[in-house]
Amino acid sequence: MRFPAPLVTLIRELGRLPGIGPKSAQRLAFYLFNQSDADVLTLARAIEEAKTGLERCPRCHNVMGVGDAACGVCLDASRDAAILCVVEGPADVLAIERSGEYAGVYHVLHGALSPMHGVGPDQLTIESLLARLDDIREVVLATSTTVEGEATAMYLAQHLRERAVSLTRIAYGLPVGGDLEYADEVTLGRAMTHRRPM
Amino acid sequence: MRFPAPLVTLIRELGRLPGIGPKSAQRLAFYLFNQSDADVLTLARAIEEAKTGLERCPRCHNVMGVGDAACGVCLDASRDAAILCVVEGPADVLAIERSGEYAGVYHVLHGALSPMHGVGPDQLTIESLLARLDDIREVVLATSTTVEGEATAMYLAQHLRERAVSLTRIAYGLPVGGDLEYADEVTLGRAMTHRRPM
Repeated sequence: MRFPAPLVTLIRELGRLPGIGPKSAQRLAFYLFNQSDADVLTLARAIEEAKTGLERCPRCHNVMGVGDAACGVCLDASRDAAILCVVEGPADVLAIERSGEYAGVYHVLHGALSPMHGVGPDQLTIESLLARLDDIREVVLATSTTVEGEATAMYLAQHLRERAVSLTRIAYGLPVGGDLEYADEVTLGRAMTHRRPM
Repeated sequence: MRFPAPLVTLIRELGRLPGIGPKSAQRLAFYLFNQSDADVLTLARAIEEAKTGLERCPRCHNVMGVGDAACGVCLDASRDAAILCVVEGPADVLAIERSGEYAGVYHVLHGALSPMHGVGPDQLTIESLLARLDDIREVVLATSTTVEGEATAMYLAQHLRERAVSLTRIAYGLPVGGDLEYADEVTLGRAMTHRRPM
Protein backbone atom coordinates (compact mmCIF):
# COMPACT_ATOMS: atom_id res chain seq x y z
CA MET A 1 0.00 0.00 0.00
CA ARG A 2 1.19 3.49 -0.78
CA PHE A 3 0.03 6.65 0.94
CA PRO A 4 -1.71 9.29 -1.22
CA ALA A 5 0.63 12.04 -2.45
CA PRO A 6 -0.62 14.87 -0.20
CA LEU A 7 0.02 12.69 2.84
CA VAL A 8 3.52 11.73 1.68
CA THR A 9 4.31 15.42 1.13
CA LEU A 10 2.94 16.41 4.53
CA ILE A 11 4.91 13.73 6.37
CA ARG A 12 8.09 14.71 4.50
CA GLU A 13 7.66 18.43 5.25
CA LEU A 14 6.82 17.88 8.92
CA GLY A 15 9.80 15.55 9.19
CA ARG A 16 12.12 18.36 8.10
CA LEU A 17 11.33 20.32 11.25
CA PRO A 18 13.97 20.13 14.01
CA GLY A 19 13.23 17.54 16.67
CA ILE A 20 10.51 15.83 14.62
CA GLY A 21 11.51 12.38 13.38
CA PRO A 22 9.71 10.25 10.79
CA LYS A 23 7.44 8.63 13.40
CA SER A 24 6.38 11.96 14.93
CA ALA A 25 5.86 13.45 11.47
CA GLN A 26 3.54 10.59 10.60
CA ARG A 27 1.64 10.91 13.87
CA LEU A 28 1.25 14.68 13.36
CA ALA A 29 0.06 14.18 9.77
CA PHE A 30 -2.70 11.76 10.83
CA TYR A 31 -3.60 14.06 13.70
CA LEU A 32 -4.03 16.96 11.26
CA PHE A 33 -6.03 14.77 8.88
CA ASN A 34 -8.53 14.16 11.69
CA GLN A 35 -8.77 17.80 12.87
CA SER A 36 -11.42 20.26 11.69
CA ASP A 37 -10.87 22.29 8.52
CA ALA A 38 -10.79 25.50 10.57
CA ASP A 39 -8.08 24.27 12.97
CA VAL A 40 -5.83 23.03 10.18
CA LEU A 41 -6.22 26.19 8.10
CA THR A 42 -5.47 28.32 11.17
CA LEU A 43 -2.20 26.43 11.64
CA ALA A 44 -1.30 26.68 7.94
CA ARG A 45 -1.96 30.45 7.98
CA ALA A 46 0.01 30.91 11.20
CA ILE A 47 3.01 29.18 9.62
CA GLU A 48 2.72 31.27 6.48
CA GLU A 49 2.72 34.39 8.68
CA ALA A 50 6.08 33.37 10.12
CA LYS A 51 7.42 34.75 6.83
CA THR A 52 4.79 37.29 5.76
CA GLY A 53 4.06 38.79 9.20
CA LEU A 54 7.48 38.83 10.83
CA GLU A 55 10.86 40.33 10.07
CA ARG A 56 14.13 41.11 11.82
CA CYS A 57 14.52 44.32 13.85
CA PRO A 58 16.83 46.59 11.80
CA ARG A 59 18.73 47.52 14.95
CA CYS A 60 19.22 44.31 16.95
CA HIS A 61 17.93 41.57 14.56
CA ASN A 62 15.41 40.36 17.15
CA VAL A 63 12.06 39.27 15.70
CA MET A 64 9.41 41.98 15.14
CA GLY A 65 6.13 42.47 13.29
CA VAL A 66 6.33 43.50 9.62
CA GLY A 67 6.08 47.29 9.41
CA ASP A 68 7.23 47.95 13.00
CA ALA A 69 10.00 50.54 13.35
CA ALA A 70 11.98 48.23 15.67
CA CYS A 71 11.41 45.37 18.12
CA GLY A 72 9.77 45.83 21.52
CA VAL A 73 13.07 46.06 23.39
CA CYS A 74 14.65 48.61 21.04
CA LEU A 75 11.49 50.77 21.11
CA ASP A 76 11.38 50.77 24.92
CA ALA A 77 12.89 54.17 25.91
CA SER A 78 13.21 53.08 29.56
CA ARG A 79 15.96 50.60 28.73
CA ASP A 80 19.68 51.33 29.02
CA ALA A 81 20.81 51.48 25.38
CA ALA A 82 24.46 51.66 26.46
CA ILE A 83 24.52 48.01 27.60
CA LEU A 84 24.34 45.45 24.85
CA CYS A 85 23.69 41.76 25.40
CA VAL A 86 24.77 39.49 22.53
CA VAL A 87 22.68 36.31 22.17
CA GLU A 88 22.38 33.55 19.61
CA GLY A 89 18.64 33.73 18.94
CA PRO A 90 15.35 35.53 19.71
CA ALA A 91 14.41 32.72 22.13
CA ASP A 92 17.43 33.72 24.24
CA VAL A 93 16.12 37.30 24.37
CA LEU A 94 12.85 35.97 25.76
CA ALA A 95 14.64 33.74 28.28
CA ILE A 96 16.75 36.64 29.59
CA GLU A 97 13.72 38.95 29.67
CA ARG A 98 11.89 36.39 31.81
CA SER A 99 14.72 36.43 34.34
CA GLY A 100 13.95 40.11 34.98
CA GLU A 101 17.65 40.77 35.71
CA TYR A 102 18.59 42.72 32.60
CA ALA A 103 17.53 46.20 31.50
CA GLY A 104 19.85 46.84 28.56
CA VAL A 105 19.33 46.12 24.87
CA TYR A 106 20.21 43.09 22.75
CA HIS A 107 22.00 42.00 19.63
CA VAL A 108 20.77 38.75 18.07
CA LEU A 109 23.42 36.84 16.11
CA HIS A 110 20.97 34.29 14.62
CA GLY A 111 23.31 31.40 15.23
CA ALA A 112 26.75 30.56 16.58
CA LEU A 113 30.04 29.99 14.79
CA SER A 114 30.22 26.41 13.56
CA PRO A 115 32.66 25.86 10.68
CA MET A 116 31.55 22.20 10.58
CA HIS A 117 28.04 23.34 9.59
CA GLY A 118 29.22 26.14 7.31
CA VAL A 119 28.44 28.91 9.79
CA GLY A 120 31.23 31.50 9.70
CA PRO A 121 31.24 35.15 10.90
CA ASP A 122 29.54 36.24 7.65
CA GLN A 123 26.50 34.07 8.36
CA LEU A 124 25.93 35.83 11.69
CA THR A 125 25.03 39.49 12.30
CA ILE A 126 28.54 40.30 13.53
CA GLU A 127 29.21 43.11 11.06
CA SER A 128 26.15 45.04 12.18
CA LEU A 129 27.17 44.37 15.82
CA LEU A 130 30.57 46.00 15.24
CA ALA A 131 28.79 48.90 13.53
CA ARG A 132 26.63 49.76 16.56
CA LEU A 133 29.30 49.92 19.31
CA ASP A 134 29.81 53.70 19.31
CA ASP A 135 27.57 54.58 22.28
CA ILE A 136 27.91 51.21 24.00
CA ARG A 137 29.49 51.08 27.45
CA GLU A 138 29.34 47.33 28.06
CA VAL A 139 28.88 44.26 25.88
CA VAL A 140 27.60 41.15 27.69
CA LEU A 141 28.42 38.00 25.74
CA ALA A 142 25.47 35.70 26.45
CA THR A 143 26.00 33.03 23.82
CA SER A 144 25.42 29.44 24.97
CA THR A 145 28.05 27.54 26.93
CA THR A 146 28.22 24.95 24.14
CA VAL A 147 31.36 24.51 22.04
CA GLU A 148 29.86 26.73 19.31
CA GLY A 149 28.65 29.35 21.78
CA GLU A 150 32.05 29.50 23.48
CA ALA A 151 33.85 29.78 20.15
CA THR A 152 31.53 32.62 19.17
CA ALA A 153 32.14 34.41 22.47
CA MET A 154 35.92 34.04 22.00
CA TYR A 155 35.75 35.33 18.44
CA LEU A 156 33.66 38.33 19.47
CA ALA A 157 35.93 39.05 22.45
CA GLN A 158 38.94 39.24 20.12
CA HIS A 159 37.19 41.77 17.88
CA LEU A 160 35.54 43.81 20.65
CA ARG A 161 38.53 44.23 22.95
CA GLU A 162 40.19 46.73 20.63
CA ARG A 163 37.02 48.83 20.60
CA ALA A 164 37.59 50.04 24.18
CA VAL A 165 34.29 48.62 25.29
CA SER A 166 33.80 46.87 28.62
CA LEU A 167 33.38 43.15 27.91
CA THR A 168 31.65 40.58 30.13
CA ARG A 169 30.52 36.97 29.84
CA ILE A 170 27.46 35.55 31.63
CA ALA A 171 28.48 33.53 34.69
CA TYR A 172 29.17 29.82 34.67
CA GLY A 173 28.14 27.81 37.69
CA LEU A 174 25.67 25.42 39.20
CA PRO A 175 22.08 25.84 38.06
CA VAL A 176 19.78 27.08 40.83
CA GLY A 177 18.06 24.11 42.45
CA GLY A 178 20.74 21.83 41.04
CA ASP A 179 22.05 18.97 43.08
CA LEU A 180 25.84 19.26 43.48
CA GLU A 181 26.17 15.49 43.34
CA TYR A 182 24.69 15.39 39.83
CA ALA A 183 26.56 18.36 38.36
CA ASP A 184 29.03 17.39 35.63
CA GLU A 185 32.69 17.89 36.51
CA VAL A 186 33.28 20.76 34.05
CA THR A 187 30.39 22.79 35.44
CA LEU A 188 31.47 22.00 38.99
CA GLY A 189 35.05 22.99 38.18
CA ARG A 190 33.91 26.32 36.77
CA ALA A 191 31.59 26.93 39.73
CA MET A 192 34.59 26.36 42.02
CA THR A 193 36.95 28.57 40.02
CA HIS A 194 34.44 31.43 39.93
CA ARG A 195 33.43 31.12 43.60
CA ARG A 196 32.47 34.43 45.20
CA PRO A 197 32.93 35.86 48.71
CA MET A 198 29.74 36.01 50.75
CA MET B 1 9.13 42.73 25.93
CA ARG B 2 6.20 41.20 24.08
CA PHE B 3 6.43 39.07 20.97
CA PRO B 4 4.75 40.40 17.81
CA ALA B 5 1.22 39.01 17.24
CA PRO B 6 2.04 36.65 14.31
CA LEU B 7 4.72 35.00 16.45
CA VAL B 8 2.39 34.60 19.43
CA THR B 9 -0.24 33.04 17.15
CA LEU B 10 2.29 30.70 15.56
CA ILE B 11 3.66 29.51 18.93
CA ARG B 12 0.10 28.96 20.21
CA GLU B 13 -0.98 26.97 17.13
CA LEU B 14 2.18 24.83 17.07
CA GLY B 15 1.75 24.21 20.80
CA ARG B 16 -1.68 22.67 20.16
CA LEU B 17 -0.13 19.80 18.20
CA PRO B 18 0.23 16.52 20.12
CA GLY B 19 3.66 16.00 21.65
CA ILE B 20 4.73 19.61 21.12
CA GLY B 21 5.03 21.57 24.36
CA PRO B 22 5.41 25.34 24.76
CA LYS B 23 9.23 25.16 24.53
CA SER B 24 9.23 23.07 21.36
CA ALA B 25 6.55 25.29 19.82
CA GLN B 26 8.74 28.33 20.47
CA ARG B 27 11.81 26.63 19.02
CA LEU B 28 9.87 25.56 15.92
CA ALA B 29 8.48 29.07 15.46
CA PHE B 30 11.94 30.66 15.52
CA TYR B 31 13.21 27.92 13.24
CA LEU B 32 10.46 28.69 10.71
CA PHE B 33 11.16 32.43 11.02
CA ASN B 34 14.73 31.75 9.90
CA GLN B 35 13.86 29.42 7.01
CA SER B 36 13.43 30.52 3.41
CA ASP B 37 10.05 31.78 2.16
CA ALA B 38 9.78 28.81 -0.18
CA ASP B 39 10.36 26.20 2.56
CA VAL B 40 7.85 27.76 4.94
CA LEU B 41 5.19 28.15 2.25
CA THR B 42 5.70 24.53 1.18
CA LEU B 43 5.03 23.41 4.74
CA ALA B 44 1.96 25.67 5.08
CA ARG B 45 0.54 24.31 1.80
CA ALA B 46 1.29 20.72 2.79
CA ILE B 47 -0.64 21.21 6.03
CA GLU B 48 -3.56 22.80 4.19
CA GLU B 49 -3.63 19.79 1.86
CA ALA B 50 -4.13 17.50 4.85
CA LYS B 51 -7.73 18.75 4.63
CA THR B 52 -8.13 19.72 0.96
CA GLY B 53 -6.19 16.84 -0.59
CA LEU B 54 -7.12 13.90 1.62
CA GLU B 55 -10.28 12.17 2.67
CA ARG B 56 -11.41 8.90 4.20
CA CYS B 57 -11.84 5.81 2.06
CA PRO B 58 -15.63 5.21 1.77
CA ARG B 59 -15.11 1.49 2.35
CA CYS B 60 -12.54 1.16 5.15
CA HIS B 61 -12.03 4.77 6.36
CA ASN B 62 -8.30 4.59 5.68
CA VAL B 63 -6.76 7.81 4.34
CA MET B 64 -6.90 8.33 0.55
CA GLY B 65 -6.45 11.14 -1.98
CA VAL B 66 -9.48 13.35 -2.69
CA GLY B 67 -11.29 11.99 -5.76
CA ASP B 68 -9.90 8.43 -5.47
CA ALA B 69 -12.52 5.68 -5.63
CA ALA B 70 -11.05 3.97 -2.57
CA CYS B 71 -7.74 3.63 -0.70
CA GLY B 72 -4.77 1.70 -2.06
CA VAL B 73 -5.58 -1.45 -0.06
CA CYS B 74 -9.26 -1.57 -1.02
CA LEU B 75 -8.41 -0.99 -4.70
CA ASP B 76 -5.85 -3.82 -4.71
CA ALA B 77 -7.68 -6.76 -6.30
CA SER B 78 -4.96 -9.20 -5.22
CA ARG B 79 -5.93 -8.87 -1.55
CA ASP B 80 -8.26 -11.22 0.29
CA ALA B 81 -11.37 -9.11 0.84
CA ALA B 82 -12.88 -11.78 3.10
CA ILE B 83 -10.41 -11.09 5.93
CA LEU B 84 -10.89 -7.80 7.71
CA CYS B 85 -8.36 -6.30 10.13
CA VAL B 86 -9.79 -3.69 12.50
CA VAL B 87 -7.28 -1.01 13.56
CA GLU B 88 -7.44 2.29 15.45
CA GLY B 89 -5.81 4.55 12.87
CA PRO B 90 -4.24 4.80 9.38
CA ALA B 91 -0.78 4.64 10.97
CA ASP B 92 -1.62 1.14 12.18
CA VAL B 93 -2.48 0.13 8.61
CA LEU B 94 0.97 1.25 7.54
CA ALA B 95 2.63 -0.57 10.44
CA ILE B 96 0.89 -3.85 9.61
CA GLU B 97 1.60 -3.42 5.88
CA ARG B 98 5.29 -3.02 6.70
CA SER B 99 5.27 -6.33 8.55
CA GLY B 100 4.37 -8.04 5.26
CA GLU B 101 2.37 -10.68 7.16
CA TYR B 102 -1.15 -9.65 6.21
CA ALA B 103 -2.92 -9.81 2.87
CA GLY B 104 -6.51 -9.01 3.81
CA VAL B 105 -8.27 -5.65 3.97
CA TYR B 106 -8.73 -3.17 6.81
CA HIS B 107 -11.29 -1.22 8.73
CA VAL B 108 -10.02 1.98 10.40
CA LEU B 109 -11.95 2.98 13.54
CA HIS B 110 -10.28 6.41 13.88
CA GLY B 111 -9.84 6.07 17.59
CA ALA B 112 -10.56 3.72 20.48
CA LEU B 113 -13.37 3.71 23.02
CA SER B 114 -12.58 6.11 25.84
CA PRO B 115 -15.61 7.30 27.82
CA MET B 116 -13.28 9.53 29.88
CA HIS B 117 -12.43 11.48 26.72
CA GLY B 118 -15.95 11.42 25.32
CA VAL B 119 -15.20 8.73 22.74
CA GLY B 120 -18.14 6.30 22.56
CA PRO B 121 -19.12 3.81 19.82
CA ASP B 122 -20.78 6.62 17.83
CA GLN B 123 -17.48 8.53 17.52
CA LEU B 124 -15.83 5.53 15.85
CA THR B 125 -16.66 3.92 12.50
CA ILE B 126 -18.28 0.92 14.17
CA GLU B 127 -21.65 1.23 12.44
CA SER B 128 -20.03 1.04 9.01
CA LEU B 129 -17.94 -1.91 10.23
CA LEU B 130 -21.08 -3.86 11.18
CA ALA B 131 -22.56 -2.95 7.79
CA ARG B 132 -19.75 -4.56 5.80
CA LEU B 133 -19.57 -7.99 7.43
CA ASP B 134 -21.66 -9.89 4.87
CA ASP B 135 -18.84 -11.42 2.80
CA ILE B 136 -16.29 -11.44 5.61
CA ARG B 137 -14.89 -14.77 6.79
CA GLU B 138 -12.60 -13.54 9.57
CA VAL B 139 -12.28 -10.32 11.57
CA VAL B 140 -8.86 -9.70 13.15
CA LEU B 141 -9.10 -7.25 16.05
CA ALA B 142 -5.82 -5.35 15.92
CA THR B 143 -6.54 -2.46 18.26
CA SER B 144 -3.75 -1.48 20.64
CA THR B 145 -3.09 -3.43 23.81
CA THR B 146 -3.78 -0.28 25.86
CA VAL B 147 -6.78 -0.03 28.19
CA GLU B 148 -8.75 1.79 25.46
CA GLY B 149 -7.67 -0.63 22.74
CA GLU B 150 -8.62 -3.65 24.85
CA ALA B 151 -11.98 -2.13 25.74
CA THR B 152 -12.64 -1.48 22.06
CA ALA B 153 -11.71 -5.06 21.15
CA MET B 154 -14.03 -6.39 23.88
CA TYR B 155 -16.88 -4.19 22.71
CA LEU B 156 -16.42 -5.24 19.09
CA ALA B 157 -16.14 -8.91 20.06
CA GLN B 158 -19.51 -8.71 21.81
CA HIS B 159 -21.16 -7.27 18.71
CA LEU B 160 -19.37 -9.44 16.16
CA ARG B 161 -19.81 -12.82 17.82
CA GLU B 162 -23.52 -12.99 16.94
CA ARG B 163 -22.68 -12.31 13.28
CA ALA B 164 -21.25 -15.82 12.81
CA VAL B 165 -17.91 -14.41 11.73
CA SER B 166 -14.60 -15.92 12.82
CA LEU B 167 -13.05 -13.55 15.35
CA THR B 168 -9.35 -13.28 16.24
CA ARG B 169 -7.17 -10.93 18.28
CA ILE B 170 -3.52 -10.18 17.39
CA ALA B 171 -1.16 -12.12 19.63
CA TYR B 172 0.22 -10.85 22.92
CA GLY B 173 3.75 -11.78 23.84
CA LEU B 174 7.34 -10.70 24.10
CA PRO B 175 8.46 -8.25 21.44
CA VAL B 176 11.03 -9.75 19.05
CA GLY B 177 14.52 -8.86 20.24
CA GLY B 178 13.11 -8.13 23.71
CA ASP B 179 15.07 -9.09 26.79
CA LEU B 180 12.98 -11.34 29.01
CA GLU B 181 14.49 -9.76 32.10
CA TYR B 182 13.11 -6.35 31.15
CA ALA B 183 9.61 -7.42 30.04
CA ASP B 184 6.85 -6.17 32.33
CA GLU B 185 5.05 -8.86 34.35
CA VAL B 186 1.73 -8.51 32.50
CA THR B 187 3.37 -9.03 29.09
CA LEU B 188 5.43 -11.91 30.46
CA GLY B 189 2.33 -13.47 32.00
CA ARG B 190 0.50 -13.29 28.68
CA ALA B 191 3.49 -14.67 26.80
CA MET B 192 3.53 -17.61 29.19
CA THR B 193 -0.24 -18.22 28.99
CA HIS B 194 -0.16 -18.16 25.20
CA ARG B 195 2.98 -20.32 24.85
CA ARG B 196 3.03 -22.49 21.72
CA PRO B 197 4.34 -26.00 21.03
CA MET B 198 7.49 -26.09 18.92
